[in-house]
Amino acid sequence: MRCINKINLINNLTPIVKLKKEIGNTSIYMKRDDLIDFYFGGNKVRLYEYIISDVIKQKAEKLITFGSIHSNHVRVTAAVAAYFSLDCDIIIIQDHNNASHLVEGNSLLIDFIGVNKYVCSSENAREYIDNHLNTQDTKGVNYYFVPGGGHTPIATMAYSDIMNEILSQSEALNVNFDAIFLPTGTGTTQAGLLHGKDKFKFDGEIFGVTVARESKRCKKEIIDMINGLRKIDSQNVLVEESSINILENSGIGYGEIDERIIKIMKDIAKSDGILLDPIYNAKSFYAMTKYLTENKTYTNVLYLNTGGVPNIFIEEISRKAGSR
Amino acid sequence: MRCINKINLINNLTPIVKLKKEIGNTSIYMKRDDLIDFYFGGNKVRLYEYIISDVIKQKAEKLITFGSIHSNHVRVTAAVAAYFSLDCDIIIIQDHNNASHLVEGNSLLIDFIGVNKYVCSSENAREYIDNHLNTQDTKGVNYYFVPGGGHTPIATMAYSDIMNEILSQSEALNVNFDAIFLPTGTGTTQAGLLHGKDKFKFDGEIFGVTVARESKRCKKEIIDMINGLRKIDSQNVLVEESSINILENSGIGYGEIDERIIKIMKDIAKSDGILLDPIYNAKSFYAMTKYLTENKTYTNVLYLNTGGVPNIFIEEISRKAGSR
Repeated sequence: MRCINKINLINNLTPIVKLKKEIGNTSIYMKRDDLIDFYFGGNKVRLYEYIISDVIKQKAEKLITFGSIHSNHVRVTAAVAAYFSLDCDIIIIQDHNNASHLVEGNSLLIDFIGVNKYVCSSENAREYIDNHLNTQDTKGVNYYFVPGGGHTPIATMAYSDIMNEILSQSEALNVNFDAIFLPTGTGTTQAGLLHGKDKFKFDGEIFGVTVARESKRCKKEIIDMINGLRKIDSQNVLVEESSINILENSGIGYGEIDERIIKIMKDIAKSDGILLDPIYNAKSFYAMTKYLTENKTYTNVLYLNTGGVPNIFIEEISRKAGSR
Repeated sequence: MRCINKINLINNLTPIVKLKKEIGNTSIYMKRDDLIDFYFGGNKVRLYEYIISDVIKQKAEKLITFGSIHSNHVRVTAAVAAYFSLDCDIIIIQDHNNASHLVEGNSLLIDFIGVNKYVCSSENAREYIDNHLNTQDTKGVNYYFVPGGGHTPIATMAYSDIMNEILSQSEALNVNFDAIFLPTGTGTTQAGLLHGKDKFKFDGEIFGVTVARESKRCKKEIIDMINGLRKIDSQNVLVEESSINILENSGIGYGEIDERIIKIMKDIAKSDGILLDPIYNAKSFYAMTKYLTENKTYTNVLYLNTGGVPNIFIEEISRKAGSR
């Protein structure tokens, strides 16, 4: 059994707030992990509380990771590396849809930190990353490679813990949540919550809305993460495959923004003074709204806002918001 | 004596964190009011906890305010109006320096809420606002006019309260702050802190760094606010004029960004994973750094980060950050 430690990077308990926005007769609560600030880090900071502990244990001198230009994980990697005085290589995977975003929002913040930035196309990403790591090996660099999204079993532990935090807050609020909804990219956060559901005995359902991949791929990744986590956590946790619920996102591709996304962003801004990011949270909040409208059996639902503030400030949003 | 109430808009206590960044032998702590989220509201949300209480008492149906396109106050006004289902007129005061920012960052978020937006030039702002209010009067609209920056005695009360909060946190941290530094625009926040300094017996000094006006004008506005607040607060608070410290900001005009601003933003991003906004906080943090380098008599200093997240995401920053 591998021992897993945690290094504190977060100053405050993120609140659970009741939204003024309701969907039918369902009350919506929001867990504000978007307020985890470390370089506007959101949920990705929780993952790094575990990852960086492992990095330090292995005495690595450099972090290497990859991701799209929208990636909160990539931005947080840059900030965490700087904070712990580690060198940092970032490989940006570019596809034809996001070339114009390279100088905006998230990208700007990565540049601010001053990491070593590399750009490759999505078509040859795997080969590019392999070559990059081989070169580091040849040079004898003691690096730590973090998969895209921070998608590793050790990081998954973070959201298993958070299930416990949610249950404490739920008790303090005197509200039982029938279900938790969240955006699912690589699946790490959902895998952690599912592990925590069994470990801490949460009765409700968990719904991940896929924002990037097909449901089948999401499910496979989640199972892999939970199996990986079972090997390093001392508790004997069992997750039934049938408890892994993945909702589709109405056919909006990763990084795409349409009028439904803009509308839900405006709605929640007006009703609650909260701005959802378009890439992860507005998209999954929209899918949750649709699901709850069709399935009216829920009284109280928790939406996990995983964050992504910088992605609000991209020119595409500005252009589409203007056409109201 | 007018009774002043408060309506809660803030979910969490903003933390005080010790920065890794030190200046000479002085330890720097930061009060994270930039984490007050209500529409990325920062310190302006605290002011509205008092203002909106008064609006409701007066049964107003519309908020009217004005400010520059960078103004956090203007953005929060839009969100607060929507939250309380009030109509909202926003008058943007435009000068020749900020025309290009009209479609970015802060402006985008104001548009998202869908307020009634008017634009006038700084040369005829006073006349424009007067005419606007006259028209509303003629129509018989029951509006509530909020001065730029939320600069009213009732709002000043918010930061008098916060001095008490800072003292509690200081005790919990077991640190005595020799001084508090903050950006000063209209002077409301500094006036509140000065009122609170006497009311709650804070021994340290308070330094406002002017980001918009001449020191003399700042001082006058602060005195006016404190005098106004004395009329509505039940405590007999005395503020000596000699305790009002205004630091200059090295000649950088309101809304201007130069290489010193970019450098301090990058420095704190790297050392602490915190991004200062360029308009208010990076500028005043820079002035504080300069002051502490020249006056080495402080052991622990508190910097009040008043917020302004959306102003980080303007194209000028992107352009200037690129030339590293």
